[in-house]
Amino acid sequence: MALPKQSDDFPGWYQAVVKQADLAEPSLARGTMVIKPYGFAIWEAIQRAFDERIKATGHENLYFPMFIPARLLEKEAEHVEGFAPEVAVVTHAGGEKLEEPLVVRPTSETIIWDAYSRWVQSYRDLPLLYNQWCNVVRWEMRPRVFLRTTEFLWQEGHTAHETAEEAIAESLRILREVYADAAEKVLAIPVRLGRKSAAERFPGAVETYAMEALMRDRKALQAGTSHYLGQNFAKAYGVQFQGRDGTLQHAYATSWGVSTRLVGGVIMAHGDDRGLRLPPALAPSQVVVVPIYRTPEERGGVLEACASLAAALRERGVRVKVDDRDEHRPGYKFNEWEMKGVPVRAEVGPRDVAAGVVQIARRDTGTKESCPATGAGERVSELLGSIQESLLREAAEFRDAHTFRPKDSKEMAGLLGDPGGFMIAGWCGSPACEATVKGDTKATIRYLPLDPEPIDGTCIVCGAQAMEEAAWAQAY
Amino acid sequence: MALPKQSDDFPGWYQAVVKQADLAEPSLARGTMVIKPYGFAIWEAIQRAFDERIKATGHENLYFPMFIPARLLEKEAEHVEGFAPEVAVVTHAGGEKLEEPLVVRPTSETIIWDAYSRWVQSYRDLPLLYNQWCNVVRWEMRPRVFLRTTEFLWQEGHTAHETAEEAIAESLRILREVYADAAEKVLAIPVRLGRKSAAERFPGAVETYAMEALMRDRKALQAGTSHYLGQNFAKAYGVQFQGRDGTLQHAYATSWGVSTRLVGGVIMAHGDDRGLRLPPALAPSQVVVVPIYRTPEERGGVLEACASLAAALRERGVRVKVDDRDEHRPGYKFNEWEMKGVPVRAEVGPRDVAAGVVQIARRDTGTKESCPATGAGERVSELLGSIQESLLREAAEFRDAHTFRPKDSKEMAGLLGDPGGFMIAGWCGSPACEATVKGDTKATIRYLPLDPEPIDGTCIVCGAQAMEEAAWAQAY
Repeated sequence: MALPKQSDDFPGWYQAVVKQADLAEPSLARGTMVIKPYGFAIWEAIQRAFDERIKATGHENLYFPMFIPARLLEKEAEHVEGFAPEVAVVTHAGGEKLEEPLVVRPTSETIIWDAYSRWVQSYRDLPLLYNQWCNVVRWEMRPRVFLRTTEFLWQEGHTAHETAEEAIAESLRILREVYADAAEKVLAIPVRLGRKSAAERFPGAVETYAMEALMRDRKALQAGTSHYLGQNFAKAYGVQFQGRDGTLQHAYATSWGVSTRLVGGVIMAHGDDRGLRLPPALAPSQVVVVPIYRTPEERGGVLEACASLAAALRERGVRVKVDDRDEHRPGYKFNEWEMKGVPVRAEVGPRDVAAGVVQIARRDTGTKESCPATGAGERVSELLGSIQESLLREAAEFRDAHTFRPKDSKEMAGLLGDPGGFMIAGWCGSPACEATVKGDTKATIRYLPLDPEPIDGTCIVCGAQAMEEAAWAQAY
Repeated sequence: MALPKQSDDFPGWYQAVVKQADLAEPSLARGTMVIKPYGFAIWEAIQRAFDERIKATGHENLYFPMFIPARLLEKEAEHVEGFAPEVAVVTHAGGEKLEEPLVVRPTSETIIWDAYSRWVQSYRDLPLLYNQWCNVVRWEMRPRVFLRTTEFLWQEGHTAHETAEEAIAESLRILREVYADAAEKVLAIPVRLGRKSAAERFPGAVETYAMEALMRDRKALQAGTSHYLGQNFAKAYGVQFQGRDGTLQHAYATSWGVSTRLVGGVIMAHGDDRGLRLPPALAPSQVVVVPIYRTPEERGGVLEACASLAAALRERGVRVKVDDRDEHRPGYKFNEWEMKGVPVRAEVGPRDVAAGVVQIARRDTGTKESCPATGAGERVSELLGSIQESLLREAAEFRDAHTFRPKDSKEMAGLLGDPGGFMIAGWCGSPACEATVKGDTKATIRYLPLDPEPIDGTCIVCGAQAMEEAAWAQAY
């Protein structure tokens, strides 16, 4: 089945890629999805990239239950206001009505900080640097596979610190050394880092930091957030410690998360009109070897050459699949692996065997080359490295080419309509101006500078003195 | 705090180890637990062992939602009868009452086989060899940390096959090549493999295979099960395929799971009166290096020697922790790491530095030796290998020493009371005899031979002709 063109119907293209690359499908309960094996293998690679970095920065994994007594959720006022409308509630279990309903976690600050109140006594118990990988549930009115599902998979880090400075440094460290590093080096998605405006902040946070990426329809995707929560949760859940000076103090909190939404990010940051394009670091198969033959006599030699190429690649740690299915023709296989975004395709036919070469095609650029069979392992490894870099560079160039500095709100509205992208402009800091832009164009402030500096300029909305530069965009 | 002795109070010992080794703690919702970082690191090592083997035998991971529409659960009669009393039910979400309640998965056959009805059309689509790692909920009347919690973590494999033979072979392959192999080689828990009696079978299964282990209180633990489900789920959920002969046929199913219960198994199979004893393959730290010094002058040289030992060990891929906390004395540290079951402790004091040696202590046997510092990396690696083997051998000898062949039901009841263990005896095959033993002694049939052969003997309960030999034990 042909895909809709990205330029004609991006949402239709996205849905068709998810289906045809066999990544996921809707499940029975509203807004839930089945993550199919190919999609899940991509998620596992994403998990590995983040989990390694989370551990390398000194964090440990643990696991909290998904059921939170309803009263517990209510202790932090902003938090409950933000999440109460979205939760799923268990009222019956074991054949009986429960005395107290249980909320299925939409995020775990409440149950974790309740436990921290028992775990933390003294400054010597700090910091707590913990993370968990789990499922969470947020009832979505407009679910969209990977991007916004009622149940999704994620990691949520929850740390407790002695001082505000330390907690802020932690949330920025996660943003830079864990999130941005994994996004760029493994997912090949370039990200811009910044603060969120109050309107876009996590419920209960003092400051929300985020990494924002630009998709190929020129809409932004919030790819991960890291929150500095101040003492809000410590106060709500009674997490106090005896400080170095002997006084009782409330601990400072951070929390941070990335989710299966990132699979959607990979699809929309790199995919093209032929389907997925996977960065080699994520690809379940980095190379597919397709044998080409017409007669049984040709078959043996061709398959043998394919096997020896695969062996040479595996020796170099490359993940290879030899597609020796007899029931499909090479053209069918080419389309299928292009749809699935396998970074490199190697073709071997009888003439290649005779000449001692293999044909190599890059999924990202479509370029093909002939390569001596003896050097193919080395050449393909090299290509995988360039493809990884090239996808990142291409996405960064695309984003930069769609980052504008409109001179007034009319120009901004026009650019947001076509071609879209990030609009950098002065902002006075008022929620009213932010709401005006959202009302007129659906764009929101995606990020504010990490280190705001006074600027010389005016608010693009009201013309008053600007506080800082904001980046507006329409977003997922 | 001293532990209760295993021989005095095994349940008290278990609870105290879980707490003092900082493995887990009860959480707020009934029967749920927080798996703390040390306990979770053990679970991650268990997961890796099983996941590797699941993938090596050709299975792929995927993910199904945890919410199952209530009506879906009701389609397989035995299955719903088994699980309906244990489920947790979501009745409200997104601020509204749901039109149809959602059950939180107690296991996922129902939602998975509903999807398989859309995924399977032809014999060419088979087999489906899928697995997922997830949380499940079963409302427990007598929860017990790790062993029986209302929410637990597990993997559940669900495969679909063309023939009964193939499905049976799959469930036995999982039992042997995945479950028993990981249990024995990584967890160092020797297991006996067998069939379950009808009374102990999974609801909806034609045959349940299990691996059974003996704990140090001489009770059995069902450590993992693999079910042959016949065509029950295919018929209930309409999974039909066009066979090689052109006719429509129902697929054959297996399902199989191991859970966080295995952490409890590791504690109870290996632990002693000083705490945990971890097999090196599972241990988050395989070696702890404890510096011993009294004066600041001694400190520098000792810490340097510790660091160089740690480096030599890390080079060999050994997981090492140097416990250089100044606020605790060596004796305190020894107790703590013994409690946490670290397989090898290395001590380095000023006299050791002067003599160019390190002191090495095995957690499992308690034996100590002095070893030249230059050869310590090699010696410790060697020791880790012997400890892994030795824990398995010790557990197997313990189990074999507590496997009896009582001559009559009176002797069996006596042995079950003291010392406990596996009782191998003839069984006529009648559920009534099985129920009698359970009523009298609380023991159940833990396993029946994988390949039952006619035996020459009588039922230990009723004296009629025995069908086969059963292994009875009290169990978790």
